[in-house]
Amino acid sequence: MEQTYTFTQQTITLNLAKQMLEAAEKKGIELGMKFAISIVDKAGNLKAFYAMDGAPVLALEIAQNKAFSAAAYNRATHEWYDRLKDDPPLLTGLVHTNRLVIFGGGYPILINGECVGGIGVSGGHYSHDMQVCEAGLEILAVLTKEA
Amino acid sequence: MEQTYTFTQQTITLNLAKQMLEAAEKKGIELGMKFAISIVDKAGNLKAFYAMDGAPVLALEIAQNKAFSAAAYNRATHEWYDRLKDDPPLLTGLVHTNRLVIFGGGYPILINGECVGGIGVSGGHYSHDMQVCEAGLEILAVLTKEA
Amino acid sequence: MEQTYTFTQQTITLNLAKQMLEAAEKKGIELGMKFAISIVDKAGNLKAFYAMDGAPVLALEIAQNKAFSAAAYNRATHEWYDRLKDDPPLLTGLVHTNRLVIFGGGYPILINGECVGGIGVSGGHYSHDMQVCEAGLEILAVLTKEA
Amino acid sequence: MEQTYTFTQQTITLNLAKQMLEAAEKKGIELGMKFAISIVDKAGNLKAFYAMDGAPVLALEIAQNKAFSAAAYNRATHEWYDRLKDDPPLLTGLVHTNRLVIFGGGYPILINGECVGGIGVSGGHYSHDMQVCEAGLEILAVLTKEA
Repeated sequence: MEQTYTFTQQTITLNLAKQMLEAAEKKGIELGMKFAISIVDKAGNLKAFYAMDGAPVLALEIAQNKAFSAAAYNRATHEWYDRLKDDPPLLTGLVHTNRLVIFGGGYPILINGECVGGIGVSGGHYSHDMQVCEAGLEILAVLTKEA
Repeated sequence: MEQTYTFTQQTITLNLAKQMLEAAEKKGIELGMKFAISIVDKAGNLKAFYAMDGAPVLALEIAQNKAFSAAAYNRATHEWYDRLKDDPPLLTGLVHTNRLVIFGGGYPILINGECVGGIGVSGGHYSHDMQVCEAGLEILAVLTKEA
Repeated sequence: MEQTYTFTQQTITLNLAKQMLEAAEKKGIELGMKFAISIVDKAGNLKAFYAMDGAPVLALEIAQNKAFSAAAYNRATHEWYDRLKDDPPLLTGLVHTNRLVIFGGGYPILINGECVGGIGVSGGHYSHDMQVCEAGLEILAVLTKEA
Repeated sequence: MEQTYTFTQQTITLNLAKQMLEAAEKKGIELGMKFAISIVDKAGNLKAFYAMDGAPVLALEIAQNKAFSAAAYNRATHEWYDRLKDDPPLLTGLVHTNRLVIFGGGYPILINGECVGGIGVSGGHYSHDMQVCEAGLEILAVLTKEA
């Protein structure tokens, strides 16, 4: 059997991260609320970040943790609760995992079906946070369709 | 009464830890998922560790915490929930204990009924993680029967 | 100008990490000392780990931090001191950086000149730790020459 | 004596933070190195952040700590060493302060002499990091002169 010594991972560029932050911020302004918006790379490390003026201090860390959670498990954070709610040990236990957020506002960033990073938003109810994330993901869809 | 100054602890060798990791990894490949697999010694300290290629970043710490939990209390992590569920103070409070995982995927490593370490796995649902652990424990049963 | 949305990173496989651990452990046995040996991936996350039987508890974390330092800055840990010794602010300040080790025993893992991870060893004087790392790197040279 | 119940703090806007990040990144590209660039607000909390593609993992936290140090004490990080070097208790003790960086690459952001935030850069030697910060501060000088 042939041995493999390395494998390849795609990770988000700063160029893309900035455009996603801009699109997300624009949505935040439209909603009239103050959000922290975070992008992490494939490995979950911070890539780019904006805190809108007046964003709650608490949102700064939550946004980062949501982006981390999404990239580090390749799952949108709002998908966790349905998987937990009828599974009492997970519902009781998993929620204590360091940096794992299990409510909406974090999404993996997928290009050609491959996770290349994560986006996380905090500042409103998670239903607002999700809209801001989705605006960031929509610009990605537009950009990669153009490419 | 005679005084005693020390007592003896049996702890897992690297030799055994490696064979358990190999057996666990083989099961992981068979399941077609990407797991982090951790072995700790009697004292709960890291002994040996594998992250399969593509294992979620989040799994790296959870696998280590499961192995720690199992060795540090001599209890499989999936046994906790049944003990907690009708005991509200524990159910509410114990789950916050640093590094304690209360869902499946961590087992003490027992030889002749004595805990000599722990194995912890993360990467799938805990039902998958448990299968991977059990594959590691099965090779231990084979090896110690041979001995 | 053409936009780029992702860039590619090569990261070490578990297959290679195991062979490096085995080669390093063999050197450790030859030296007659007890080492902790850690391999991290490109992003500095734990990939594979062995603690030889009797390795000092303190070595477990140091080995991991050395591997992290080497991968996270693409620099062997023993190269830091010469760069610091005549630069008082760095000598006084940089050494306090979280997880950064500035003495020998951590090396980046390079394939075709690209950093794909790190190896870190602790348990002896750093001159011994370095020999153990180098044995891990030598097997990499042999394997990639064969390929 | 008249009592006062609040006082006013000026803090950096996201608008300014982005322009400083852009100017700093441009300098980083010119230097041909990979930097992490962080802006914090008046209170030292993260305001905006870029990691250039390929920036060392270790730089992500150091850049944030430099920006924090600069804003949180209203002092450029490279000014610390001269103040410490002949003061043995500080030289020995202060350097252990959590998040305080005492070498170059962090500057307070001053507008009309008032500290409104901090900028921190890591990725090269601190002499490079300082150049990248200074490029961020120069655009601020241009912008506020225009105003």
